[in-house]
Amino acid sequence: MTSAVPAGVTIEPVGGGITAAGGFRVAGVSCGIKKKEALDLALIVADGLAAAAAVFTTNKARAAPVLVSREHLAHSAGQARAILVNSGCANACTGPEGMAVARRSADFVASVLGCTASQVLVASTGVIGVQLDLGKVRRGAGLAARSLSRSAHHDAACAIMTTDIAPKASAVSVSTPAGTFHVGGMAKGAGMIAPHMATMLGFLTTDAVVSPPTLQRALAEAVDVTFNAITIDGDTSTNDSVFLLAGGASAVRVDDELYPALVAALRDVCGSLARAIVRGGEGATKLVSISATGAASAEDAKRAAHTIANSLLVKTAIHGGDPNWGRLLAAAGRAGAAFDVDRASVRVGPVVLFDDGVPFDERAAEAASYLAGADLDIEIDLGAGGSHEATVWTCDLSAEYVKINAEYRT
Amino acid sequence: MTSAVPAGVTIEPVGGGITAAGGFRVAGVSCGIKKKEALDLALIVADGLAAAAAVFTTNKARAAPVLVSREHLAHSAGQARAILVNSGCANACTGPEGMAVARRSADFVASVLGCTASQVLVASTGVIGVQLDLGKVRRGAGLAARSLSRSAHHDAACAIMTTDIAPKASAVSVSTPAGTFHVGGMAKGAGMIAPHMATMLGFLTTDAVVSPPTLQRALAEAVDVTFNAITIDGDTSTNDSVFLLAGGASAVRVDDELYPALVAALRDVCGSLARAIVRGGEGATKLVSISATGAASAEDAKRAAHTIANSLLVKTAIHGGDPNWGRLLAAAGRAGAAFDVDRASVRVGPVVLFDDGVPFDERAAEAASYLAGADLDIEIDLGAGGSHEATVWTCDLSAEYVKINAEYRT
Repeated sequence: MTSAVPAGVTIEPVGGGITAAGGFRVAGVSCGIKKKEALDLALIVADGLAAAAAVFTTNKARAAPVLVSREHLAHSAGQARAILVNSGCANACTGPEGMAVARRSADFVASVLGCTASQVLVASTGVIGVQLDLGKVRRGAGLAARSLSRSAHHDAACAIMTTDIAPKASAVSVSTPAGTFHVGGMAKGAGMIAPHMATMLGFLTTDAVVSPPTLQRALAEAVDVTFNAITIDGDTSTNDSVFLLAGGASAVRVDDELYPALVAALRDVCGSLARAIVRGGEGATKLVSISATGAASAEDAKRAAHTIANSLLVKTAIHGGDPNWGRLLAAAGRAGAAFDVDRASVRVGPVVLFDDGVPFDERAAEAASYLAGADLDIEIDLGAGGSHEATVWTCDLSAEYVKINAEYRT
Repeated sequence: MTSAVPAGVTIEPVGGGITAAGGFRVAGVSCGIKKKEALDLALIVADGLAAAAAVFTTNKARAAPVLVSREHLAHSAGQARAILVNSGCANACTGPEGMAVARRSADFVASVLGCTASQVLVASTGVIGVQLDLGKVRRGAGLAARSLSRSAHHDAACAIMTTDIAPKASAVSVSTPAGTFHVGGMAKGAGMIAPHMATMLGFLTTDAVVSPPTLQRALAEAVDVTFNAITIDGDTSTNDSVFLLAGGASAVRVDDELYPALVAALRDVCGSLARAIVRGGEGATKLVSISATGAASAEDAKRAAHTIANSLLVKTAIHGGDPNWGRLLAAAGRAGAAFDVDRASVRVGPVVLFDDGVPFDERAAEAASYLAGADLDIEIDLGAGGSHEATVWTCDLSAEYVKINAEYRT
């Protein structure tokens, strides 16, 4: 994803994931929530108090950790020392008992680190409707606190996985006239393989100096065009959360001038993690960028791109390598966005299949050969006379997806 | 579906489909739009001028026949003699040429029947983006006009099929203190098997005497809870239309008192056709009634029922016979309707799996055994404190659906 980067600023990919930014240590341990000694608990700790920002699921069935983290961020005025994450149990639809477990987990980490409970954020992913075992979480958190390091970023990324095929990490170095800072992160996907499984989680850190309100604004801006611009199956989980901590170790202060550089770096890291999530979608064989252009408003562009990206008929056609412009137009037409089929166009990769109301079916073979690839780019001009556009990443829909999700839980 | 039927009125199923109502003749013929001499053109003709009503797709990419029929209904002040329907070609995304073909088809039927063009309605279903052959339509319409009969209702129902597994017809006799009238109909499904295929079409007749405005109101009311309450994959086609003609042969006048009887009969016939469409959904193995109850508003109830019914995770779980209340609640939570998980409940057939925030997983086996059936009933109470409810019929999502829709068009 390209972002507007201010003059004099360069953004380069680096290793290190969630600990690419100075001033953070992490751990990924096993505490028995998952079976077979799999890593199931991650702890992210800032050396000192960090500015903290987060965006949470819009689902009204919010899991306990989401409710508790929102509360803590409000009470701590956007400051945090640590984030505790477990996989294997979502602590969702667990009632007052689940809330108590989430609160006590934070209390425990606070006591170990010597901070207040509201300076600890919590996140969970895994099975819905099952109580999280507080004893296991405490044991795990204690172990994690003793094994924090700057090199455990891979373990941490593994510990937040549920049915993800691979850990997902990304980081960049940002050179500015005022000095260099870093943004790094890790995520787990919307892989909902096992029944009741859900959740997209993202964790980001930066060593820039950023005030909490600015951090929140930058995160929301970046998430809007990255994590919020992906869709596997249109479902939003009870636990979806993205957290961002800014510790300040680089001493580079993000002022109005550097703000675009921070947003660009966040878009870079979040975009890379978001695309990795889609690539790892259940049964997915293709990553598809769907752009809606020529929209009358930004809202229309978004709505059209999301509707097309979630259309089962579009997703199955892409799976089958079928350059089916009719399905793309029909999805655009029902999106609720201003749309004029006689001025609309459809582009599949380099091939224009429909333009100003006229189909070019003789180009279908060329488009089909493009669709055989794994990284696809499709653009629908809504013909609404505007210049607004939006891009959504999605994956194809395969019989494998159905098979995975129809399996009866054991 | 149960409807409020006024005292003294009884509604009984009868045979005869679209010609169960007196005063209508139909034909179903082959004119070469489809291959292999398949029936592909139906003509529905009222003995005299009939009151006419219609509801059309909300898709903004409206096919030519939709645009022409809307125009004609407006010009004729809701009166019509005939409806001409072809299958095999949707006449959608066909530009000015498609509009001309739709208009000339109506002109031709008008000249044969001796009425005005605006008293002829047209509908098409089939491949999108391909021009409809006017010569074939004229030849077919001429043949159909010569072979009109009251017994050809089965041929007519077959002639509007595209990839439907079976023709769909339904009819009722309505006994009232003022005499007996009939409502009958036929439909084709949202079977979108072949690429670019689309469309749900419904055709209804009655021999009651009804004014055009009353007929339109009754049709809209019935469609809202039947054809508009089904979903196979959430896609809305460019051609979706439901037409209703009232010829008056029974001489039973629908006044304010009999209006509920007309609506109840329409709901009965439309409901039966709508459920047949879902049962015939691509790869469908189960018909599922999803009810959202306890909603704060009628809009909320509808939104929640539709969101749950369209959730891929819900539809795959049902396919797999998995009593996955977590997916049902998560879908309800993201519907944008008022929702309180701590007061919500989930019922799968006779089994309450979740109530007031508490799961009853020990009942999962009983619910799974219920889900092995083919005709399912699921209810989610949104816990929003209201008493509004809505029901949507959907089908499960199978690997077969994906296979069918991913096949590259030949």
